[in-house]
Parts: sequence; structure tokens; C-alpha cells
Amino acid sequence: MAATAVDSAILSGLFSDPETAALFDEEAVIRAMLEVEGALALAEADCCLIPRDAAKRIAAAAGRLAVDPAALRDGTAQDGVPVPALVALLRKATNEADAHFVHWGATSQDIVDTGLVLRLKQALDLHETRLRALCDLLAAMAETYRATPIAARTRTQQATPTSFGLKVAAWLAPLLRHIERLPTIRDRLLLVSFGGAAGNLSALGDAALDVEGHLARRLGLGVPPAPWHTARDGLIDYANWLSLVTGTLGKIGTDVALLAQNEVAELRPGAGGGSSTMPNKVNPIGAEVLISLARSNAGLIGTLHQAALHEHERSGSGWLLEWLALPQMALATGKALAEAAAMLSGLVVNADRMRATIEVSNGLMLAEAASFALAAHMPRPEAQALVKDACREALAFDIHLFDVLAKRAPAPVDWQALKDPARHMGAADAMIDRVLESHQALARQR
Amino acid sequence: MAATAVDSAILSGLFSDPETAALFDEEAVIRAMLEVEGALALAEADCCLIPRDAAKRIAAAAGRLAVDPAALRDGTAQDGVPVPALVALLRKATNEADAHFVHWGATSQDIVDTGLVLRLKQALDLHETRLRALCDLLAAMAETYRATPIAARTRTQQATPTSFGLKVAAWLAPLLRHIERLPTIRDRLLLVSFGGAAGNLSALGDAALDVEGHLARRLGLGVPPAPWHTARDGLIDYANWLSLVTGTLGKIGTDVALLAQNEVAELRPGAGGGSSTMPNKVNPIGAEVLISLARSNAGLIGTLHQAALHEHERSGSGWLLEWLALPQMALATGKALAEAAAMLSGLVVNADRMRATIEVSNGLMLAEAASFALAAHMPRPEAQALVKDACREALAFDIHLFDVLAKRAPAPVDWQALKDPARHMGAADAMIDRVLESHQALARQR
Amino acid sequence: MAATAVDSAILSGLFSDPETAALFDEEAVIRAMLEVEGALALAEADCCLIPRDAAKRIAAAAGRLAVDPAALRDGTAQDGVPVPALVALLRKATNEADAHFVHWGATSQDIVDTGLVLRLKQALDLHETRLRALCDLLAAMAETYRATPIAARTRTQQATPTSFGLKVAAWLAPLLRHIERLPTIRDRLLLVSFGGAAGNLSALGDAALDVEGHLARRLGLGVPPAPWHTARDGLIDYANWLSLVTGTLGKIGTDVALLAQNEVAELRPGAGGGSSTMPNKVNPIGAEVLISLARSNAGLIGTLHQAALHEHERSGSGWLLEWLALPQMALATGKALAEAAAMLSGLVVNADRMRATIEVSNGLMLAEAASFALAAHMPRPEAQALVKDACREALAFDIHLFDVLAKRAPAPVDWQALKDPARHMGAADAMIDRVLESHQALARQR
Amino acid sequence: MAATAVDSAILSGLFSDPETAALFDEEAVIRAMLEVEGALALAEADCCLIPRDAAKRIAAAAGRLAVDPAALRDGTAQDGVPVPALVALLRKATNEADAHFVHWGATSQDIVDTGLVLRLKQALDLHETRLRALCDLLAAMAETYRATPIAARTRTQQATPTSFGLKVAAWLAPLLRHIERLPTIRDRLLLVSFGGAAGNLSALGDAALDVEGHLARRLGLGVPPAPWHTARDGLIDYANWLSLVTGTLGKIGTDVALLAQNEVAELRPGAGGGSSTMPNKVNPIGAEVLISLARSNAGLIGTLHQAALHEHERSGSGWLLEWLALPQMALATGKALAEAAAMLSGLVVNADRMRATIEVSNGLMLAEAASFALAAHMPRPEAQALVKDACREALAFDIHLFDVLAKRAPAPVDWQALKDPARHMGAADAMIDRVLESHQALARQR
Repeated sequence: MAATAVDSAILSGLFSDPETAALFDEEAVIRAMLEVEGALALAEADCCLIPRDAAKRIAAAAGRLAVDPAALRDGTAQDGVPVPALVALLRKATNEADAHFVHWGATSQDIVDTGLVLRLKQALDLHETRLRALCDLLAAMAETYRATPIAARTRTQQATPTSFGLKVAAWLAPLLRHIERLPTIRDRLLLVSFGGAAGNLSALGDAALDVEGHLARRLGLGVPPAPWHTARDGLIDYANWLSLVTGTLGKIGTDVALLAQNEVAELRPGAGGGSSTMPNKVNPIGAEVLISLARSNAGLIGTLHQAALHEHERSGSGWLLEWLALPQMALATGKALAEAAAMLSGLVVNADRMRATIEVSNGLMLAEAASFALAAHMPRPEAQALVKDACREALAFDIHLFDVLAKRAPAPVDWQALKDPARHMGAADAMIDRVLESHQALARQR
Repeated sequence: MAATAVDSAILSGLFSDPETAALFDEEAVIRAMLEVEGALALAEADCCLIPRDAAKRIAAAAGRLAVDPAALRDGTAQDGVPVPALVALLRKATNEADAHFVHWGATSQDIVDTGLVLRLKQALDLHETRLRALCDLLAAMAETYRATPIAARTRTQQATPTSFGLKVAAWLAPLLRHIERLPTIRDRLLLVSFGGAAGNLSALGDAALDVEGHLARRLGLGVPPAPWHTARDGLIDYANWLSLVTGTLGKIGTDVALLAQNEVAELRPGAGGGSSTMPNKVNPIGAEVLISLARSNAGLIGTLHQAALHEHERSGSGWLLEWLALPQMALATGKALAEAAAMLSGLVVNADRMRATIEVSNGLMLAEAASFALAAHMPRPEAQALVKDACREALAFDIHLFDVLAKRAPAPVDWQALKDPARHMGAADAMIDRVLESHQALARQR
Repeated sequence: MAATAVDSAILSGLFSDPETAALFDEEAVIRAMLEVEGALALAEADCCLIPRDAAKRIAAAAGRLAVDPAALRDGTAQDGVPVPALVALLRKATNEADAHFVHWGATSQDIVDTGLVLRLKQALDLHETRLRALCDLLAAMAETYRATPIAARTRTQQATPTSFGLKVAAWLAPLLRHIERLPTIRDRLLLVSFGGAAGNLSALGDAALDVEGHLARRLGLGVPPAPWHTARDGLIDYANWLSLVTGTLGKIGTDVALLAQNEVAELRPGAGGGSSTMPNKVNPIGAEVLISLARSNAGLIGTLHQAALHEHERSGSGWLLEWLALPQMALATGKALAEAAAMLSGLVVNADRMRATIEVSNGLMLAEAASFALAAHMPRPEAQALVKDACREALAFDIHLFDVLAKRAPAPVDWQALKDPARHMGAADAMIDRVLESHQALARQR
Repeated sequence: MAATAVDSAILSGLFSDPETAALFDEEAVIRAMLEVEGALALAEADCCLIPRDAAKRIAAAAGRLAVDPAALRDGTAQDGVPVPALVALLRKATNEADAHFVHWGATSQDIVDTGLVLRLKQALDLHETRLRALCDLLAAMAETYRATPIAARTRTQQATPTSFGLKVAAWLAPLLRHIERLPTIRDRLLLVSFGGAAGNLSALGDAALDVEGHLARRLGLGVPPAPWHTARDGLIDYANWLSLVTGTLGKIGTDVALLAQNEVAELRPGAGGGSSTMPNKVNPIGAEVLISLARSNAGLIGTLHQAALHEHERSGSGWLLEWLALPQMALATGKALAEAAAMLSGLVVNADRMRATIEVSNGLMLAEAASFALAAHMPRPEAQALVKDACREALAFDIHLFDVLAKRAPAPVDWQALKDPARHMGAADAMIDRVLESHQALARQR
């Protein structure tokens, strides 16, 4: 039974995804902590701090120990951290002679944070794969709709025509940057946390940093200059990345929902929720989910920044606050990536309707273009005044602005040709190319 | 398996409590929605919209239907709401002739929101009971420690003496106001949500408001002037209350953690987490939990306010955002109330140490009192200057300020008597009385 | 020169309003603190703590003292609070013999917080006046458009018809509740803050609570049971109210922006920003401002809840955090109320277009109504299946659903009459009445 | 007159700093926009779009135009952006023949966002300089106090000894990373924004991207693949950096405030606020300010993430929301950097008191070390049991743990030597070295 939307058997299909969830559920949490305890024993054997054989037996026990999460609950509630209860179980699972080498010189936070990092490493890989696939999808769309005119809308009002491919490229560009951000995120996040009781590994004597190095190597993690028990910037940067991703996807969701309104109908989300009583409705559930997850993450990232003020060498309250916020952010991002892919791959693009929207404006959407065309033949203020006047006439008599101008404007402009929205997409093509080049460059690095 | 801290079998002992969780888990969610569907059928029979017998059979079926939450997942993911899938199951559980009377004229939001309100009603009762018990505990403490001197600390520095009882009364006073807030919270929250597809109950003809009234009566809820599908102020006010409660408890947790520092040691939390390797440590887990839950709620309340901008007659994205934030806030508050009671009932108060802190200051903490005592005999600026000088001497020679003043000050002040911290608790007694009177007035209303 | 948007000479027209700003600017801050110092002296004279004549001279000096705000800057930066520097100036402005009676027994927080409350009292009055005027405007609109059909939109999709008057009434209903919330907000906020150095008024001896009572009476404020130096619930409740108000106005702004899209064009905001180059555009600036202010307040309310964890008897960091957040929330609310009034009073309602939107749907928007009409003559599932089929035909052949049904459905339904959207507004009329009754009841209390 | 704390003539000394404020005040805002308009004209001349001479005259006019900020207020309030009003003034300041070349083909957002970026470039330089100086200060402190023992505190309780130098190095390490983050932040933020009305520069014909390139070059900015009108990730990353910086400084402030408590007294902030009536108090104003600014930024970063959901090609509401949040974040960071430098350079370190805290624990703080020392001679569980018992005796009889162990433990441990806290600083030295090496590597790059 679960009380949060993310874990609810009813609602998790909206807010979570099974693969990401599997990296944050109790089993994964325990498995990762045991992996750290096992690697720690081996690293300490590497440095001759504890007997090699004992270390091997501890690592083996950690590898095969099956822990009922519920068995850790009371200990966790009392100690404020699951490690003492887990270590007790691991010691029990080890032979008596080895037991005291378990968790040698470590502190609970070393185990919890390193275990977390091991799981975030997998989450980053999973989400990068999804993000790259999503970018491939959008790159293909940008190419496909490169020459498809659509009304640009600024401040919720129709502006001038643009290319739907450019609109898609503008969705894609920040997603590509989110991929580019990953190496740095990884460098600063995927670090072993190993400081012992006070952060100075005082229980390990001269071998301390050597153990740290071996532990990191065994776990495939980096080594920070000083323990990050209280320096959470790597974690917060990661959370910021999660919210950047959902923010971009939330922007896409916003656009899709707006373009899918019945009155606009330029897009139709494929996987929308039908209404049994209202056949006219296809609710854009996927788009809504993207918006909600973005706003939820935007709230939680603030909480993680609040959690940055860890006091002294270890903060209980700051640390616990992270536990309350971070997993949901990662789940939201995993789900948003999956949802965006589903929504966009099922998207029905109504290019005729896009063009019709522009045409029905009787050229008003092209007024700026008209004044620039005229400005080649007269001072721009004069051109603008002329166009403004013509707009009034076009509106009043419901005729095309360019037909008015053809009659009125003393300039050799081919107004008929200019009516074609495809003539008004400016540098869209070149901009799309630049974005697609970024995409290809990233794709080559894979 | 659960991925959030709140639902985690490992961590829920820190962040959740079983009784509150039971009002938000899948079973409770389903149960409440079925209760609404049953009551709706009966209310529609009350108004002769559907046959009485059919309504009774629907209500009975709703009452006994056992739904596997997982059976609603796919439908919920597709429709963005669990109601269509649930209604389908309820129809299946009803005989064929009655099935089409199920959910007659209602919309999904009517069922979800009214179901939520039924559960919040119980949550409010549960939390009020806890809050009142906590207030009783604090009222008793305020009485007990009425005359126990403690150093007041302002801006993290020792100020002048006060009474520990008053400190407790200052914790209690806002908690009492949180109780006083409840009737209004309930009045604006515990309302039926019933608007149908467009918020105007158009499918129910002239009987619409009559049905609404019977539905509300049957569920023990109030009736709003207009449907609150998009007017979420009652819900946000409730969430604000949740965060007010955790905020006050977080303040108490902060004070307890600070007073439990080894260097202060005026309080010792009873249920703290011991450290196996460091016998000198008693980690104030309960206090930390109170701080973390307060800061988590402080983040989530912002998210709920962000969710207030529901568009048109029903907002998918705004509504889903509430689902992501509200349950955790209620769980946090339930847990914080339980944790505060545990922490405070096990609190060890070291009155000797409190007094010793004051005494070790060599009277510096009483400097303000000294200048007021002297100001009865000389202009205050003169008194202040004299005291300031004496402070320097007291500090330099490590003697009591009042011993310096006894020698230096040309005023008939009984410095020896003034040394007693109990003489410096000002209006603490009267203030405690006022708070306890509020407490008793509230207790009488129970 | 100002660096924040709210104070910027360029931007303040978007984000602030002069009347609210005048309650929060430096002059108002200083004036209110001096008023408190003056009233304190008089209250202490009331209790014979200081000479009546001295008190009168102090109050007079406080009343006429003109302080250059910049003169307080350095002292404030050093002391963390402007009061010591201000008290020094007030003492200088008083004759030497009286000077030491200035600020007698008070602490800086007493002056700052009581001064704040005096200004919030005025802000509440100002904003209530605006809120009531806005409600009057909306009440008139609800009446005017009571019978004007408009497509309800749920989850951003057209649903079934409703009344534009009911839409307006649904905007109005929460605003009325915000007025109803005010008496309680005032009761818990408009309290004197008077606790002295440690919160127990120890410098004032037996007269302490008596002074508090006189001070409160002289300032027209209430008396709390214990000082609220660290119990900020009254303040947070007020901030919550500010954000509730902007949240409701942000919802209205959202609706207006959506209905003003060119493709919808059912509303046109009167005071929108024109575009010089694009005559087709009327940017809904007012609506955008309402949305932005709502989201800004939704962020800042979280910060105020974070600030609730004041430690011990006075928290510097918690208190300073309030200073950073609260004024902007009040200014946002003041501006949003003014902006909403401007936007709504200039709103152009296009009832024809509203009706046309419904008609162009070829009856699909009335499908639910059709199935309910048929359900009077056949089992509802059969009716629904019939309608579903007819919808497909209507869509395929672009004919009205009711024309299809008239041919197909074996039931004596007057389909022609049913085409009128006015027949489908359900209980809108009665719901509008209920909201207007609430409005009138509140208006009578004025 | 200003209503926000940041701009208040009274409070700005606590929350703002003049140099950062000078980059965000009205004059700077206008100056930067005019610089963009001037560079735009020249870039268009570079591409032969407008006459070179006209461009030079426009750039010169832009360079010398003095604009009264208040003159832009009404236009900004109406248009939702200051550019139309500013362009009108610039046109007036240009000769009539050139006027129509002003702002050729650009949109308001191009000017506002590029102008912002020009100012953020300066802000980044200013803050980097401060950050580097702060790091130098902390590096020197880490060296100085390398061998100074202090009690580590975990979960607010004393743990085991560590080095104060390591504590400082742990403050320093994330600040160094914040410097390392800057090149990437700059790369993604310091980009020209140039898209024209619809984001595709359609008014500029084939020269569009060429103009963009020249504009960027002239302003010393980079070129994005597609306009970032609605892709705000670079801006949010920057804001995240601002909050990361204040978060680390807030953590330092927290530690300083805790260590400056009278009962701890291991640090004394130099520039604290004295209390006139309480000579025992030195309020840690600087530390409080660091905490408050960190928490304020932690709230505002959430608001910026909320603002990420820009709709379509330009979002009024999302954009305005940024204006409400970003400047305050930058000001907070500028002030926090200045405040931290002031606080830390005036910090009085009481090494004797740090040592005394450890000694007064009678060796309990060294219990872990004792059990590790014994574990060299016996199984660790046995060693732990022995130490646990000895701790009880040490507590009961107020004698040093090591004196108990010297009598009881059958192991050749030099307990007297072990009493020295300097023996228990573990790998502190090597960790400090690693941090200082990072610092030197960064310093070399300057």
C-alpha cells in the first residue's frame, strides 16, 4: 500500500516509470548499500587493513544477503539511518570471526551516500538513453516539418508565420544541451563518499586515502578532494538537471496542449484520454502529465537548495530533507522522458490546419513582412503607416491585406507570391540545420 | 516496493505514520470513491431521478466491491483519472439493468474530489486529536517548569534569563491557534464537489441542486455556492494549515536540537538515536525529523499554490499537481504530530544545567536588569554607562557583575538578592497563565 | 535607483502599485516605528512607569521627527535591525532629560513587528476595498452574462455548453471567500508585539502586561497571550491569504488569456499591449501580469513557511528571511487587484463568437445531452451506443449530430429545440443565484 | 523610495551590495539595451542591410542617449516590455532619415534578453573575483589551522576530534567547484538573443544569420543554434549557480553561528552586531545574513524553474516571472560573497577553547579511537564492549576514559599519548592538501 501518487498502484502509471522506480525502491537501496559494504571490505583488504579472506567472505555475504526492507524500519526510525540495522544483519550473515571487520572505519553516511551514487549512476544512464532517443525522434520531426508553415504565437497571440520544423528544433535544442551537460554532472556526482565518523577517516590511520582510492576504483566512482558529507553541490546540480529536463518537456507539453485545443487543432496527441460521454474530447493527458511533473520538480528543486545548509560535519535534518525530495525528482524525470516519447511519437500533425490558420488571417499575420517588402521602396515609417491603414481596410471588409496593398501601394511588389506562407519562414531552414548539426555531433559521441 | 521516502518500507518510520497513511493509501482512495458513487445513486433516488431499488443495489455493490488497485492503473494512465476504470468495475458488479444508473450525471472530478474530502475529514479528526493531546502535554510542561529559569537566547546568543515554562508556553500558543483554525478550515474544505461535465450539472435537469443537497447530506458534507472544480482555496487553506502545524513543530524541534547540544545539554531527547561507536552521542533524531518535515511541507505548500491556476472549467495539469503534493503534506503533519509527542514526552529537562548556564555568565546576562535597577536611582544613560564599565571589569577579572556593581554603584540595590535568576523572569508567570487559559478554553469545547 | 522589478522605475508599472508601495517604502517603515515608540512612551506613562510629560514630549518628537532613511543604513547593516539607529535619532530629537525614557524596556523586534502590523492593517483595508470593488464588478458581469452560452472547456478541450455568467460566478465565488477570510486574518495578525529582550518583559516589572494593554489600545491592536516573536503563524496566514488572492486572480488571467487567443476570440482584454509591427496582435499584458504575480507569490509563500523555524526566543535568520519575502507578496497582491479590475472592466465579451464555437461543433458538444435525452426512452447504454454511432456519422459527413439522431433514434425527442445551447446550461442560473446571494450578504456587512 | 528589502535605503546594507546593484538598476538596464540597439545597427550595416553611416549615427545616438527611467514606465506597463518606449526615444534622438533603421528586424525580447546577458557577463566577472578572493582567504585559513583540533559535530552532537583546517577546507572545496563551474555557465549563458518577431528572423532575409553573427561578435557574445526566446536553460543554470554559491555560504554561516554560541565560543564573528543593553551579546549578523540569503535564493530558484514553461514562441507570463526573481538572486549572491569575506576575515578563532571542548569530554569523544586502538590487540567486538563499559565508568566517576582503560585494558596501548587530540585528526592533513592543490590549480588559471 502506498500513499504518495508516485508509489500508488493506482496513480503510478501517471507519475512514475517502472525502470526508474526499480533504482529507487527498497530492494535497490539495500542492494546498493550492501555493494558498498562489500567493496569497502575488499578495499580495506587491498590496503592490508583487514584479512583478504575475511574481506572476500564479507563481500560474498553482502552479495547474497536478502534483506526484508521491513526488518530495517524500526532501526531506521530509531537511528535516523538504515545502516546500523543493515550492518547488524550483515554481521549476522558473516561468520563470527569476520563480523567485526564489517563496516570497518566507515560511517553510516558513507554507505548511504555512496549507495545512492551507485544508483544515480544507473539512473543517469537510463535517462540519457531515453533523452537521446527522444532527441532522435525530435530531430526526425524537425527534418520532416522543416517546410511546414505554422503560425508563430507570441504572448499567446498569433504573430507571423514560422516553420513547424523550427518549432520542433526549438524544443530539441535545449534537450541537446541537457545531454551535453551530463559529463560534468557525472564528474561531480559520481564520487565515493568516504569520511568516517568525523569526515577525516581517523579510524583508518595512514591507509585512509588509500582505502578511499581502492573503494572508488572498485565501485567505478571518482574521488573528491574532501568528503562531501556536507557539500551537496554535486547532488543539487544533478537535481537541477532533472528539473531542467522536466522543464523543457513541460514546455513541450504546454505547446502540445495549446495546439491541440479544439479551436486550434493543429496537433492531436495520439495517446490522449477519451471521454466516454463526450466524443468530441481527446484529453491531452500526456501533455498535462509533462506540465505537472515539471511544476512538481520545480518545487522540489527549491527544497533541495533549502537542504544545502548542512550544519557542521553531518546534518541530520538537511540530509533527511534530501531523502524526501530527490527520489521523486528522478522518478518524475524518468516518467516525463517516457511520456514525452509516447506523446510525440503518436502525435498527429495537421499541416493543412496549420496553413489554414495562417490563411484565415487574411494576411494580417504577414503585415510585418509587407512593411519590410515596402521598405525596400520607401522609408520604413511610410511603409508601416501604409500597411497599418491597409490592415484596417482588410479587417473591415474581410479581404486579404495583400489585395488591399496591391491596389494601394505604389511599389513593384509581387503580392500574390508573397501570400505563400512558405515565403515567410526566414532563417528557419538554417537554424534547423544548426540544431541538427548539434544533434549529429552528439550522436557521434555516443 | 516503494520509491518515495514516505512510502518506503525502510524509511516510512521516519517520515510517515500508519494511521494517516491508511487514509491515503490505495484502498482508502478506492473505498471513498465507491462511497461517493453509492451515495450519489441514493441521492438521485431521493430526487426520483433513478429508481430507489436500483440505487440501493448500486450502493450495496459499491459497499462490498473489492477492487485491486493495480486493476485501475492502466485506465488511470490513459484517462488521467481513475474514475472511468472504477465505474466500469462497479457497473460490472451491478446487475445489468442497474448498471447504467451508476455515476449518473457526474464527472470524474466530482468523485475524486468528494472522495478526497471524505478522507480529509478523517485526517482532520485524527490530527486534531493528536494536536489536542500534544497541547495537553505542553500545557502540563508549561505549568511544571513555570518557575524554572533558563537563559533566553536571541539571535543565537544568550540574552537574559526567562522561564522554561514560558518557552514551552510559546511553543504551545501557536499550536492552540492551529486548533482554533480548524472549524473554519473544515467549513471551507468539507464540501461536496458536484458539477458534472461542465460544472453546471446540466445532465440532471431541474433536480440538479436537489441531488447535490441530498448527496452532501448523505456524506455529511456541506454545499458550496458553485462547484469548486477550479476554485481550490479550501484545499490550499488546508495545506497551509498542515504546513503551519509542521512549521511550529519544526521550531520546537530546532529548539530541542539546540538545547540538546553537548555544550548546552539543558535538554536531552529521550528517544534519540544512539551511536554504537560514539557513546557520547545521543542523536536528536526526533528533532531532526520535525525540522525536515517542516521544510518539506514548506516546499510543497508552494507547489500547491502553483497548482491554483486551474484553467477553464477543469484543469488536468493543475489537478494532477495537487495529487503529487497534498498527500505527502498530510502524512508529514501526521508524523510530525506523533514524533513531537514522542520526543516531548521523553524529554529529560536538566533544570540545574539551565540555572548553571545563567550563573556561569557572572551576571552578564543580567546586565539589562542591573541597568534598570540602577535607573530607579539615577538617569538611565548614567546607569547604562556604569553597567557597561562594570561588565568590562567583570569580564576581565572573572568576577560577578553584581559584585562589581555592589562596590561601585552609589545606589541602595540589594545586589545579592538580584543574583537569583528567578527574580528576572518578568511577566513569564502571567503570560503562561494567559496561554493556559486559552488551552483550557479550547479543552472545554472538545 | 532600484534593482528589483517591483521597485524599478521602469518595471514597477507592471508589478507594483503606488498605494500599496506607499505602505512599504522607507518612509512608511520609519513612520510606523516612530508611532510605536511614541505610543510606548505614552503607555508607560499610563502605567506610571515614566513621567507623563516626558512621554508626551517623546510622542511629539516621534510624531514630527523626519528621518533620512539612508541615515539608518549603516546602523542597520551592523545591528541587523534599524531600531538602535532610529532610537538614537529619536533620543537626539528629545530633550536630554527625557531621552533615556525612549524605548524603555522594549526590544528591537517589538518595534519592528508592531510597526509592520500597523502598516499591514492599512494594507488589509486597502486591499479589502479593492477586492470588494472587484467582486461588485464580477457580480454585475455574472448577472449580465447569466444566459450567455459558452463552451465549457475541461482539460483544455471543449466539453459541453455552460453559461458565461456561471464562469464569472466561479471566478467570483473564491474571491468572496477571500473577503470572508479577512476578519480571522485580522484577529490573528493585528496584534501588538511586545516582549522585551527575552520575551518576558522582565525590564518592566509588575506593570509589564498593563503597559502591553495600553500600548495595544493606543495603537488599535489586539493582545496575544504570549509574545509572537517566534510564533509567526499570524503572519504566514496573512501571506497565505495574499497568495490565495493572487492565485484566484491568476486563474482568471489564465482563462482570459486562453479565451483571447486569436483562434478562440471569445474575449478581448481592453487594455492589452498593441504591437507596432503586428496589427493582428493585442497582447493580453494584464492577464500575463496576473499569472506572473500569482506564480511569484506561490514561490514566496514557500519561503515564508521556510522562515517559520525561528530558533529560541528570537531568530535573526528567520526574521530577515521574512523581510526578504513579505513586502513583495503584499505589493503583488495590491497590483494584481488593481490589474484585474482594469482588465475586467475593459473586457470585450464576444457572445456571438461564444455561441458560434458551440454551433460549429455540429452538436458534438451536446452528445452527453443527447444521450440523456434518449435515456428517458431507452436504457442508457443503448442510448449512449446510439449517440456514439451518430457522432461518427456527424463527423464523417459534417452534419449536425441532432439531424443524424432525428433520423435514426426511435424516440420522440424534439431535436430541433434541443439544438439551442441555452437549453443546456443546467443549474447555471441557480448556481449564479447562490453566488450572488453570498455577494450580497457580504456587501451588506460592509 | 523602495518597498523591497533589497532596494530599501534602510535595509539594503543587509541584503544587497552596491556593485552588483549597479548592474541591475534602471540605468544599467537602459544602458545595456541601448548598447544592443547600437550594435544591432552596426551589425546590419556590416551585412549591408542598412547604410553604414546611418548605423554609425544610430550607435552614437544610442551611446549618448540619457533616458529618464520613469519615462519608460507607462509604455512598459502598457506593452509589457520597455523596448517600444525606448526605441521611440532612440528614434527621436536620431535624425529623421535614420530613425526607421533603428531596431530593424528585431523583437523586444532580443533587446531585453541580450541586454540582460551583457549585464550578467559583468556580474559573473564581479562575482568570480569575489569568489576567488574568498577562496584565497579560506585556503590561507585551512593552512593556518591545519593542526588545530576541534570537535567534529555530527547530527548536532559532538562526534570525534577533527582539524579546524579540514573544516575550513570542507567549506572551501565546494566554493572551488563553483569557480570551476563558471566556464560552462558562461558558454551557455553569454549568448546573443536574436530571433525577431517569430524567432526565425524572417524580416532580415538571407542576411539574418550573418547579422546575428556580427551582432554577437560586436557584443562579445556567443551564438546559439536556435533563438533561446523560450529555452531558458542557460539562465536557469546560472540561477542555480547563484543559489549553489549562497547555499555553500549559508552552510558556512550556519557553522559560524553555531560555533559562536556562548556555550561553544570557539569562534567569534568580528563584525557582529553589539547589543546596547546586553554586553554579553555579539550577534552574528553576518552569519544570519548568509543563512537568510541562501534560503531566499533557494526559494527563488524554484520560481525560475516554474518560469521555464514558456508557451509557444514567446511567453509573456514566463518571461515576466523571471524578471521578478532573477535580479534578487544575483544581488543576494553578490552580497553573500561580500558578507562572507567580511565575516571570515574578521573571525576570531579560539583554538584553546576548541581544544578544551575536546578535553572536557574526558575522552568520550575518543571512544571510537580507543576501540580501534584496542582492536589491534583483540577482536573488535571485545574491544568495543570494553570501551563501552569504560565509558560508563568514566561518566559515572568523571574521570578520563583513557585512565579507566589504562587500568582495565590488557593491551600495550600508550593511553597518555593517545589523549592528545592532535593524534586523532586522521587524514585531515592529506585531505587539506588535496583541496589546496585544487585551489592552486584554479589560481594558476586566473
